[in-house]
Amino acid sequence: MTELLYYLDIFGIIVFALSGALMVGRYKLDPFGVVVLACVTAVGGGTIRDTILQAPVFWVVKPYYLYVILTTALLTIILIRQPKRIPKRFLLVADALGLALFAVLGTQKSIMLGAAYPVAIVMGTITGVVGGMIRDVLCNVIPMILSKEIYALAAMLGGSLFVAFHLLGWSENEATIAAISGALLVRLAAIYWRVSLPAFDIIDKEDK
Amino acid sequence: MTELLYYLDIFGIIVFALSGALMVGRYKLDPFGVVVLACVTAVGGGTIRDTILQAPVFWVVKPYYLYVILTTALLTIILIRQPKRIPKRFLLVADALGLALFAVLGTQKSIMLGAAYPVAIVMGTITGVVGGMIRDVLCNVIPMILSKEIYALAAMLGGSLFVAFHLLGWSENEATIAAISGALLVRLAAIYWRVSLPAFDIIDKEDK
Amino acid sequence: MTELLYYLDIFGIIVFALSGALMVGRYKLDPFGVVVLACVTAVGGGTIRDTILQAPVFWVVKPYYLYVILTTALLTIILIRQPKRIPKRFLLVADALGLALFAVLGTQKSIMLGAAYPVAIVMGTITGVVGGMIRDVLCNVIPMILSKEIYALAAMLGGSLFVAFHLLGWSENEATIAAISGALLVRLAAIYWRVSLPAFDIIDKEDK
Repeated sequence: MTELLYYLDIFGIIVFALSGALMVGRYKLDPFGVVVLACVTAVGGGTIRDTILQAPVFWVVKPYYLYVILTTALLTIILIRQPKRIPKRFLLVADALGLALFAVLGTQKSIMLGAAYPVAIVMGTITGVVGGMIRDVLCNVIPMILSKEIYALAAMLGGSLFVAFHLLGWSENEATIAAISGALLVRLAAIYWRVSLPAFDIIDKEDK
Repeated sequence: MTELLYYLDIFGIIVFALSGALMVGRYKLDPFGVVVLACVTAVGGGTIRDTILQAPVFWVVKPYYLYVILTTALLTIILIRQPKRIPKRFLLVADALGLALFAVLGTQKSIMLGAAYPVAIVMGTITGVVGGMIRDVLCNVIPMILSKEIYALAAMLGGSLFVAFHLLGWSENEATIAAISGALLVRLAAIYWRVSLPAFDIIDKEDK
Repeated sequence: MTELLYYLDIFGIIVFALSGALMVGRYKLDPFGVVVLACVTAVGGGTIRDTILQAPVFWVVKPYYLYVILTTALLTIILIRQPKRIPKRFLLVADALGLALFAVLGTQKSIMLGAAYPVAIVMGTITGVVGGMIRDVLCNVIPMILSKEIYALAAMLGGSLFVAFHLLGWSENEATIAAISGALLVRLAAIYWRVSLPAFDIIDKEDK
């Protein structure tokens, strides 16, 4: 793992922990509930990736990830108590950053662990989306990944771009940065202009 | 794995992917949300079975499962856009087929991997029910397994029948077909006649 | 594992299975749904702990856990059919007992498996809270761990106390009993006096 990948990974942990901690304003959680939600959001995807690939789980091997999450959650709790309002968009952007970072870094790690390319892209998608999915399920809201705005597409795109650049012979750092940028731009554009793919809602209207 | 088991396995993947993809009409998902939901429904149970038994996860070893799911999800998306209504019962039948197939095939695979019989039956039940459970949790509905119609019972019956036929010395193909038929008949009968076991709702009435 | 730890472990399985089975009164589950809910509540946390630490999953190695859960669920079903009302507080106390027991026993097992102390405390917390979390998610209620009363704190406290007593050189039995008592007292006090840490609900008020 290059130094760049290392810092991007820590940054992904921070933004996902933040996106988990920010959910709490909506649910009147106690401070330890905040820490738990920050944890599952930040490590959920990577834990399932490592478990499925039967590699040692990253935060068991390197417990400093836990300190990073704890610090992020505590800072969020302290700062959020200030009477300033945090707009919902801030949570969406933190989530988008984490999604793009982890989708690409998860794909890269899976290739390194010997996974075939299509499996690696699925693993990257899992790394990017599962943390947020567990966060949303615990908070009893429909996960972002199933809602209208382009989300799963951005994660799959990030992984696919990385594989493409990798096959084109780009350096690991270049491929990573370019793929993350691609996924992030697509997701941010979807948030900004509220672009969605055409949803279909033909069946089952009579059942509602 | 005999050729028959192989085709039954693929068939189970297809019907579960279909049952996941069909949920989307209710939730206005984007097409990539559909693919994700089809994936988790189709591979969720088997992934947890393989992880718990610490065997290599099946779709990591054989990525063609992913193509089967992708194809099923895309076909569902294209066909469902036609203005024909798909009745809710279609989803229930697809789910019942997947349940019966995976409960028996999961039990068979677990025995092959060296699990004790009671563990193998639990593993089969997990293989059969977890995919649909994750599907329902993500869509924020009470999972079928907890609702009234005979569901967990059908899965446990499938696994138990397979173990019984296995102990009676039947061939693997015969035992598999007979056990799947038994589980499927029970579940379909429960859907058709809306049979349920007597639910009990005595406690906590005052809390509602 | 000392004899004491063994019995405490079984007792934890029973109270968590009970807390899962007791949820059903609220949701008109069929008897097999009850068994399933009792199972996931009782083994959910330990299964994820063992999977993450890549140790053999405890109930696969020792299937008698499954019989204990099955017996508990069936007894609950039979007894609950009596017209006596079971107050909600009974479920909360069963859950608190399981939480305290598993948080400490999970930490102890993780240390034994070679995990670093902070990782072991997180693992203990996972062992204590995940079963109840899955139970609540399946029943479509906000998990207790995210709600107001001190819950995650009690689990973390149990694990931390065990580590502290362990470092102080106490015997395994003494450290376990003292840590469980500490966690249990804190959680029961929170239930009894409805103590909570100050929740914060400043952000996002305008979104509601």
